Amino acid sequence: MLSASVDIRVRYKETDKMGVVYHANYFTWFEVARVALLDELGCPYADLEKADYFLPVLSCSSTFHSPAFFDDRLQVIVKIEKLPIVRIEAFYEVKRKDEIIATGITKHAFVSSQGRVVRPPSDFVELARAKFTG
Amino acid sequence: MLSASVDIRVRYKETDKMGVVYHANYFTWFEVARVALLDELGCPYADLEKADYFLPVLSCSSTFHSPAFFDDRLQVIVKIEKLPIVRIEAFYEVKRKDEIIATGITKHAFVSSQGRVVRPPSDFVELARAKFTG
Amino acid sequence: MLSASVDIRVRYKETDKMGVVYHANYFTWFEVARVALLDELGCPYADLEKADYFLPVLSCSSTFHSPAFFDDRLQVIVKIEKLPIVRIEAFYEVKRKDEIIATGITKHAFVSSQGRVVRPPSDFVELARAKFTG
Amino acid sequence: MLSASVDIRVRYKETDKMGVVYHANYFTWFEVARVALLDELGCPYADLEKADYFLPVLSCSSTFHSPAFFDDRLQVIVKIEKLPIVRIEAFYEVKRKDEIIATGITKHAFVSSQGRVVRPPSDFVELARAKFTG
Repeated sequence: MLSASVDIRVRYKETDKMGVVYHANYFTWFEVARVALLDELGCPYADLEKADYFLPVLSCSSTFHSPAFFDDRLQVIVKIEKLPIVRIEAFYEVKRKDEIIATGITKHAFVSSQGRVVRPPSDFVELARAKFTG
Repeated sequence: MLSASVDIRVRYKETDKMGVVYHANYFTWFEVARVALLDELGCPYADLEKADYFLPVLSCSSTFHSPAFFDDRLQVIVKIEKLPIVRIEAFYEVKRKDEIIATGITKHAFVSSQGRVVRPPSDFVELARAKFTG
Repeated sequence: MLSASVDIRVRYKETDKMGVVYHANYFTWFEVARVALLDELGCPYADLEKADYFLPVLSCSSTFHSPAFFDDRLQVIVKIEKLPIVRIEAFYEVKRKDEIIATGITKHAFVSSQGRVVRPPSDFVELARAKFTG
Repeated sequence: MLSASVDIRVRYKETDKMGVVYHANYFTWFEVARVALLDELGCPYADLEKADYFLPVLSCSSTFHSPAFFDDRLQVIVKIEKLPIVRIEAFYEVKRKDEIIATGITKHAFVSSQGRVVRPPSDFVELARAKFTG
């Protein structure tokens, strides 16, 4: 399994007039966690793009159990539970201390800059395999 | 059934360095369509909030079939297929001409400003019932 | 003089926990107005980018006289007062009915995809000149 | 003088199709720095709002010297150079290593939840005065 965790401090910009974080912003936090996971794997996302590999979001979902507020210190945990071959499925938890306030899933595929689905780069596959079998 | 449709022209701000619309922004378009649906029902969302009824997003999901680009003219269609009693489930389609480029679902409940789940306002229920039986 | 006007309906996403529109979002509305101005000139911004001309924002400012609220219907007016040669300076007013609730300025230069400052495309210059002398 | 500095890692969401950070997003980073400055002063902004003091942005401006890119590690420095009595003026620098890539200014006043301009809370004034004379 691959996993990573990032600390998020809620920005004022991320709140709405209900006084809580606007739901769509959780997906940006998921992105931040995903980028950290690729860092930890040794395949920073910026490097992937330089090598003409892109990881667009094919679908995403989130369930909000409890609102997040301005200035909350949150932890966003991301996990990839199956060795990614063609598709990547990432699972997220947003925690405030011990409370899980939201969960989510994003699905991805590697595509080239032409938008064509491609096999993941061999570096990525090897590093991921090492983590899964390690 | 309740339904509404809004025209969206993609803003530059909504794109990302992949040259396409960042996925989280579709949820904002869903919001725009939802607000239009409540207008058409005769229950503008701004009025609901003035009467202390809020409709937070409990969960949301979206699937992206084809990317949206800067300056695209899109149509976002929203439908509520079951008479909303306590929970509201809304379905979305994002179309570019005849092509459905994305779909989505959001789920909501009426809550008070205190965050307590409440029954929908009677006006809303009557107007919705008229549409479903009409 | 070049000018254009767009109608904006305030999105929930654009509000913050103060119950008003977050200040940075006005710059997105300015973008929407700017795009409309280029449309009216006959030089849609999307076409300019296809021809390898980009108009990044070099600087921007805004003054907020009165807050904007969710669901407000606003008018954003943009004006270019001097024939753009190398630099373009655009002036904005955000109006709610007759009240000017915000003003702003953005400055731009044409650059290539390489980031080099370039002369504006000749089409653009001719169309702009016709408007200024017409 | 009051000052603070925050580290920002550029999010994918913050980029646009030009491949760089969309200009309006710098104002959100300024907010993050401002919040850190109030923390360091001993007056966290969340506490100010709980005591019915709000600091809306009255005007803001920014100049962009060099673009910021996805995954850039930036430093945002904020300074308040004059003891704030009624108005607060904050100055910002965005740095990538030693290079200043953007500068900005925001102006604020303390207002109540009713939107009325009020004198700053006495705690704030005392803490600020101690920093300026200390």
